[in-house]
Amino acid sequence: MIALYPGSFDPLTYGHLDLIERAARLFERVIVAVLRNPAKTPLFTVEERLSQIQKAVCHIDNVDVESFDGLTVAFARVRGARVLLRGLRAVSDFEAELQMAQTNRTLASQVETLFLSTSTEYSFLSSSVVKGVAQFGGAVGHMVPGHIEQELRQRFVWEERT
Amino acid sequence: MIALYPGSFDPLTYGHLDLIERAARLFERVIVAVLRNPAKTPLFTVEERLSQIQKAVCHIDNVDVESFDGLTVAFARVRGARVLLRGLRAVSDFEAELQMAQTNRTLASQVETLFLSTSTEYSFLSSSVVKGVAQFGGAVGHMVPGHIEQELRQRFVWEERT
Amino acid sequence: MIALYPGSFDPLTYGHLDLIERAARLFERVIVAVLRNPAKTPLFTVEERLSQIQKAVCHIDNVDVESFDGLTVAFARVRGARVLLRGLRAVSDFEAELQMAQTNRTLASQVETLFLSTSTEYSFLSSSVVKGVAQFGGAVGHMVPGHIEQELRQRFVWEERT
Amino acid sequence: MIALYPGSFDPLTYGHLDLIERAARLFERVIVAVLRNPAKTPLFTVEERLSQIQKAVCHIDNVDVESFDGLTVAFARVRGARVLLRGLRAVSDFEAELQMAQTNRTLASQVETLFLSTSTEYSFLSSSVVKGVAQFGGAVGHMVPGHIEQELRQRFVWEERT
Amino acid sequence: MIALYPGSFDPLTYGHLDLIERAARLFERVIVAVLRNPAKTPLFTVEERLSQIQKAVCHIDNVDVESFDGLTVAFARVRGARVLLRGLRAVSDFEAELQMAQTNRTLASQVETLFLSTSTEYSFLSSSVVKGVAQFGGAVGHMVPGHIEQELRQRFVWEERT
Amino acid sequence: MIALYPGSFDPLTYGHLDLIERAARLFERVIVAVLRNPAKTPLFTVEERLSQIQKAVCHIDNVDVESFDGLTVAFARVRGARVLLRGLRAVSDFEAELQMAQTNRTLASQVETLFLSTSTEYSFLSSSVVKGVAQFGGAVGHMVPGHIEQELRQRFVWEERT
Repeated sequence: MIALYPGSFDPLTYGHLDLIERAARLFERVIVAVLRNPAKTPLFTVEERLSQIQKAVCHIDNVDVESFDGLTVAFARVRGARVLLRGLRAVSDFEAELQMAQTNRTLASQVETLFLSTSTEYSFLSSSVVKGVAQFGGAVGHMVPGHIEQELRQRFVWEERT
Repeated sequence: MIALYPGSFDPLTYGHLDLIERAARLFERVIVAVLRNPAKTPLFTVEERLSQIQKAVCHIDNVDVESFDGLTVAFARVRGARVLLRGLRAVSDFEAELQMAQTNRTLASQVETLFLSTSTEYSFLSSSVVKGVAQFGGAVGHMVPGHIEQELRQRFVWEERT
Repeated sequence: MIALYPGSFDPLTYGHLDLIERAARLFERVIVAVLRNPAKTPLFTVEERLSQIQKAVCHIDNVDVESFDGLTVAFARVRGARVLLRGLRAVSDFEAELQMAQTNRTLASQVETLFLSTSTEYSFLSSSVVKGVAQFGGAVGHMVPGHIEQELRQRFVWEERT
Repeated sequence: MIALYPGSFDPLTYGHLDLIERAARLFERVIVAVLRNPAKTPLFTVEERLSQIQKAVCHIDNVDVESFDGLTVAFARVRGARVLLRGLRAVSDFEAELQMAQTNRTLASQVETLFLSTSTEYSFLSSSVVKGVAQFGGAVGHMVPGHIEQELRQRFVWEERT
Repeated sequence: MIALYPGSFDPLTYGHLDLIERAARLFERVIVAVLRNPAKTPLFTVEERLSQIQKAVCHIDNVDVESFDGLTVAFARVRGARVLLRGLRAVSDFEAELQMAQTNRTLASQVETLFLSTSTEYSFLSSSVVKGVAQFGGAVGHMVPGHIEQELRQRFVWEERT
Repeated sequence: MIALYPGSFDPLTYGHLDLIERAARLFERVIVAVLRNPAKTPLFTVEERLSQIQKAVCHIDNVDVESFDGLTVAFARVRGARVLLRGLRAVSDFEAELQMAQTNRTLASQVETLFLSTSTEYSFLSSSVVKGVAQFGGAVGHMVPGHIEQELRQRFVWEERT
């Protein structure tokens, strides 16, 4: 069974990585799918994020990293994925996620959304928290892999100088 | 992959059945596992519930119905199930479920809990709602399979006479 | 339009009373409907509660106080009430209330549940809070009408002596 | 009794329409009131939305469609409406709605907010969901009336070409 | 400043202990106050719980352990405590806690409730979870101090034999 | 003990002021700390807000008002504050606040976040609500101190004329 894990990953956190590792033990193949969302202005380009994630998951055999645009369920169908994976941290997450899952079921009833609970040590971690801390020069080494920490530091130092 | 779907099922509702049918399309084998909980006084005995569920799922090939006592993760290990399935309806569900999932991970890290969202038409349905309505003679034909509806009616008529 | 306000009212609080007064300004007739629930062991009997509420609402012309058993929607139909009224205080309230409202709609689609928000000064008040405080001899004069405060005091003094 | 149903309706969904139909059975007159909010950049202009809603409710006698700016309670007073109607879907809804209702009560104590629960089949539907799906070419025929579906399609095709 | 930390502690968990240690660094004196609640049937008697907690906090100088009955704010006043401490884990916690804090303020405006967030590693831990796992023979060594783990084991083995 | 109360205060409301007054009775010194957030476009400049708050708290001896940028925990350390204060109103608050508190603990474990519950009469009040009402000419005299009400009126009148 192929599972699609869609998201923005701007940037990938240890919370995302933990979910990917756990999913890779359950499913034949896990596709990490980075959404190209023209409506948002991300910190990292889709290409930068693809490369960040690839580096972070290179030790796991059955994980692919791809970008997509359009509806998630349409991309799932193209890749033959019958499962969408999403992590659940908190209640506010939960409602937005449930809405998305129910909407996706009305669009493609054969694709199921499966939720995994985020590990407790990452239950308050998100890409926004990472950016919020890094932007003020705070340490994020416990939140993201080393190579992403470096890119965050460069990005915000660079921004400061501009 | 074998998936265990644990619960009280006192009684099974269309919400449970919908989840079982969807899970049976995703996993090789789904074991519906009825918890023997000596601390609770259920409406139906474990044996009655096993028989109710078996009747309701007899059209699905890869579903087994069993009872168990003790820790859910211990039973999962005995049956070789690496996945626990749970339905998510509402926020209050979500927190109790998350607590259970996190507790189970500390007890058996190799067993993962996967959550499916309940179909919207059943998102306000629960075994308690069914019993609450049936107890006052209300119609529950849209909430539970026909044979369970009959058993509910007999149970509450019988109680009234006693 | 007749509106039914069902509940346990064990005992009536200023939060309930505030909702009744506001509803009485909106609807032709408001029926405060005390549920006879054999499954619960209340502090006050249904008859005591009917008398407590009647005293508290005697200054409002278009309010009736009655008891009922069975399904709420069945009693609404008997009384010609097309509206069920419920107060909303907090999130935990909200989910249970929504479940009840949705269940009631599947039982009687012509009866609508309308929710009023509890006034902020009573948003943390409930019959359970009142009993919890009165039981330990705490002051509840700001939570319930004077005659109910007296009955609470007598009840708990009496219990202490027994 | 006149009831005001205020909102953005950008665009009207089947969830809104269901609420309007149910409200029209309870109240003498229901005014659907589209807020002119200069702070937001909507997909459809106020005039387009007025026309979309009018078309959708033309089969209901006692429903009017109007636009307004300024405070909702001020407009309610001008129209003689003693009731504001709002739908409740989820918990996140609930808190924002409660805050709005309580604020409105401090501004105009004689105007009451009444909440109706959204029908379960629309409980995960919102104008944002509709736009999110339509924007990527997904089907929204089960979410909005036919004429709005067409306008959505035209809008997003037009946007793509620009 | 003296801070009172009231609760049932049936039994004390590492989550409670973590909160006590953090509070002891902030306040001159922390009183762990075990409520004698005749309405509940606990697993351990108040005396057993007092002894369990005393053993667990003996390494912290400025912590006292006491039992009380009656209103918490009344006991706080007797002990000269102007602060009640409570831990916050999850949303359902939060509402009940807020209700209790607001009720206590109406009873004794000079006593403030201060909330600390539970450490993430204990955010899904509660006395009920501990009892639920121990009852089925599961390992709770990561949830409670060693001497409480032993008493739990003895209690449930003893119960099994009876 | 020094307590830091960080926030945007755009503008200060009676809810904030109530929390400051209660905190000033508990802690030796309370520092109201206005965050300079270049990412947001506030209604009032940091300097205007500092002056508004200073006027509002001038009757309380042990309260200082300052602005800061960067991480809150870093500023707390510079000022020797071991406690961050935050108000809790509603569930949506609660989750964002908990996330912030947990993040701050990973950045500076010796700084504790203490939460106070907002007084019920202000539990639905926020700076956004104030601006939303004032913008449409609604009365906000019960939401903010008099001098801030005046500045709000001037600001929105001025905006209208431009």
